[in-house]
Amino acid sequence: MSKGEKNTVKKIKPELLGGFRDYLPSIMIARQAMVDKIRKTFESFGFLPLETPGLERSSVLGTDRDEFKMQVYRFKAGDQDVTLRFDLTVPLSRVVSANPELIKPFKRYQFGPVWRKESPQAGRYREFAQFDADIVGSDSIIADTEILVLMYETLKNLGIDKFMIRFNNRKILNGLSTYAAFGKEKTDQVLRTLDKLEKISLEGVINELQSKSHNELGEDGLALTEQSISRIVDFLNLKGNTQELIEKLRALFKGVPIAEEGISECEKITDNLESIGIPKENWRLDLSIARGLGYYTGPVFETSLTDCPEMGSVFSGGRYDDLISRFTGEKVPSIGASVGVDRLLAALEKIGKIEKRASTATALITVIDPSLSQKILRIAQNFRSSGINTEIYLGKEKGLKGQIIYAAKREIPFVIIVGEEEDKAGKLKLKSMNERKEELVSEEKAISIILNS
Amino acid sequence: MSKGEKNTVKKIKPELLGGFRDYLPSIMIARQAMVDKIRKTFESFGFLPLETPGLERSSVLGTDRDEFKMQVYRFKAGDQDVTLRFDLTVPLSRVVSANPELIKPFKRYQFGPVWRKESPQAGRYREFAQFDADIVGSDSIIADTEILVLMYETLKNLGIDKFMIRFNNRKILNGLSTYAAFGKEKTDQVLRTLDKLEKISLEGVINELQSKSHNELGEDGLALTEQSISRIVDFLNLKGNTQELIEKLRALFKGVPIAEEGISECEKITDNLESIGIPKENWRLDLSIARGLGYYTGPVFETSLTDCPEMGSVFSGGRYDDLISRFTGEKVPSIGASVGVDRLLAALEKIGKIEKRASTATALITVIDPSLSQKILRIAQNFRSSGINTEIYLGKEKGLKGQIIYAAKREIPFVIIVGEEEDKAGKLKLKSMNERKEELVSEEKAISIILNS
Repeated sequence: MSKGEKNTVKKIKPELLGGFRDYLPSIMIARQAMVDKIRKTFESFGFLPLETPGLERSSVLGTDRDEFKMQVYRFKAGDQDVTLRFDLTVPLSRVVSANPELIKPFKRYQFGPVWRKESPQAGRYREFAQFDADIVGSDSIIADTEILVLMYETLKNLGIDKFMIRFNNRKILNGLSTYAAFGKEKTDQVLRTLDKLEKISLEGVINELQSKSHNELGEDGLALTEQSISRIVDFLNLKGNTQELIEKLRALFKGVPIAEEGISECEKITDNLESIGIPKENWRLDLSIARGLGYYTGPVFETSLTDCPEMGSVFSGGRYDDLISRFTGEKVPSIGASVGVDRLLAALEKIGKIEKRASTATALITVIDPSLSQKILRIAQNFRSSGINTEIYLGKEKGLKGQIIYAAKREIPFVIIVGEEEDKAGKLKLKSMNERKEELVSEEKAISIILNS
Repeated sequence: MSKGEKNTVKKIKPELLGGFRDYLPSIMIARQAMVDKIRKTFESFGFLPLETPGLERSSVLGTDRDEFKMQVYRFKAGDQDVTLRFDLTVPLSRVVSANPELIKPFKRYQFGPVWRKESPQAGRYREFAQFDADIVGSDSIIADTEILVLMYETLKNLGIDKFMIRFNNRKILNGLSTYAAFGKEKTDQVLRTLDKLEKISLEGVINELQSKSHNELGEDGLALTEQSISRIVDFLNLKGNTQELIEKLRALFKGVPIAEEGISECEKITDNLESIGIPKENWRLDLSIARGLGYYTGPVFETSLTDCPEMGSVFSGGRYDDLISRFTGEKVPSIGASVGVDRLLAALEKIGKIEKRASTATALITVIDPSLSQKILRIAQNFRSSGINTEIYLGKEKGLKGQIIYAAKREIPFVIIVGEEEDKAGKLKLKSMNERKEELVSEEKAISIILNS
């Protein structure tokens, strides 16, 4: 049939939604290799795979009452109030609550998309993949250490050397209300403000802390006293390496039990990391790490790439001992971390650490004489069962030249030519695209050359 | 802190949405192995990975005008009309239209969830994963053959022997309106009725064909004449093996060009499959295959598992030469097939073909003496870097017995015991759970025993 025969139908614009993206093969091959490596690392720690739905009840995710202050895709499906998940942690807490038979500690990993209806920015999308590892049902400091070691090993296994895992402890931050003398109920909002330090600078933070007007979430302004703000600024201005910071914190928070507990946890984690030799250039205590999400209760951490700090944190998490009690009323101590897969990929792409590939095939079999197509199909079967990824040329080019250009564009390293001549000789022509060399060989010989290349 | 301290918050029910499910680790490990094997097979044919968003414009998916008669999750996000994708093929057609620079033929695979708001049934969910392979930009009969070979190889690589790939051709079915003398515009609706043959039996099909009342989609009844129905029944009653059917079809559709074209395509595909030795017990021409979706234009196929036919088709697809012209106005001949991953998994589970595993770890290191925790963290590092998936016990059991019970429940084959005694001896105790044997060995020896087990 001729082109455009069905043109009576009105044409549709092939447009993505704003803030959404496709992963075309050239980048998707690299993304998949990344995901495979993350999975392998997580499994090396004994984490187990879990999959949960993209769509959940709004009550479960807390989006019906804005529990976690998230911009989400929430809608009615029939008479049900539903939301596309905004992370993988709240669904995990549902799974653990609904399946009490799961053996604890429950170490699970999960990879998948999450959705947030935030204004799209460069490198930030409304749908993006996370790869999470969590330990549910352990309050051990070894668990805290293991999550940090996991973060280090994962990034190393991805071939990344220059990164900084920065950690802090929510218990120290929860001591701020006592130390800086403001109402305990303001803590969450204060921490969300401190979390913006890098984005809005100290001046911006101070403005928000003293502001009496409603914020962008419609909450009352914090309206902290000058004295409170000054103590918070003292805290934020603490400088030094991890050991020095711990000492200064001890002095600052003397007599604030919750903070003292957090400082002691930081110290133990520090000792553990030092003792097993995680290089000091890859981790440090950083008091500005607060983590916006309200559910963290202990250690919290973020990771930035030294060569691409503007991308923000690519691997974050923390301890959340109360999240599961939303369902069961019982505390189930848990800790986890999440790779921002798409953000990490974007960062690595930006700093030129992504190798793009145009093909998964190692061999292309040309089709010059259609009467030989059954022979070609058989050769392809043989090649594949020998472990060679093999494509048969299926396009419009009838001549050899056009088909070889296709192989070149796809960066397929070997071309197999089966014409009348080769067929008569019971051989095939093997063309190495890299070595620009052709030879007439048997099928077995061709397979062995390719496998040994 | 004590249990229930935060009990002031109202408890939430940890409920899934109806028609949605979790994949807990025991089944998820098997699912992941399945997905890996499918991917490997697809790549062996040179297919390339693609990823598209879960959420698309309703205009792109055609759900704003019910173009494909799909029950979907469609909603307003701000002022945008959006829909959760119901398949991976329509998004592929958008990608191809929006990225004209993609080299053709474009062979892509994609794995991911799709959403359909149908009434949930046993084994059928509202969110389920598909794994698609498509060849865009080829009208070659070799492409048609390759998709069928791919289906065969994929199922074989998954360890499945007893399956039947049934194929048909839409062109034959499109000849029905001439052959059975009914209005061509009724073809889509007639085919959707024929598609229900297995579900509602021949009597049900006849009822729908003669019905004058609106159907469940609100369309006018087909109201075919008795003569038309009788000819359709003759068609459906054709029996025989593939070669016999082709002969009978030739007689029945003599002088109906479109059907003759379809019959000839079936014959070529048959010749190809025979010539490369795909076993005849795994494929046949089946005239009852119509495929409900309106976009198919040539070969169509479905696959059922011989030991679990009630699960329906687990691997389906067909040729769709007009789908991309919705956007561009240009025909781009395409063909593809889709594994119903979750349905296939459910079927294999039902017939006992799924091996469930409780762990990804090969070794568990016990923690009896917390003062040795840094040593234990170091051993874990060593084991992992030697390629042994290693878990450190992080739970509440303080004694050895409880920790060994944990290893047994998790089916972890080796337990490493490092107590004061072993530490002093500079050794560790290696316990093989399967052989119920313990030995005091060096760390290197333990690693080598486990790696060689």
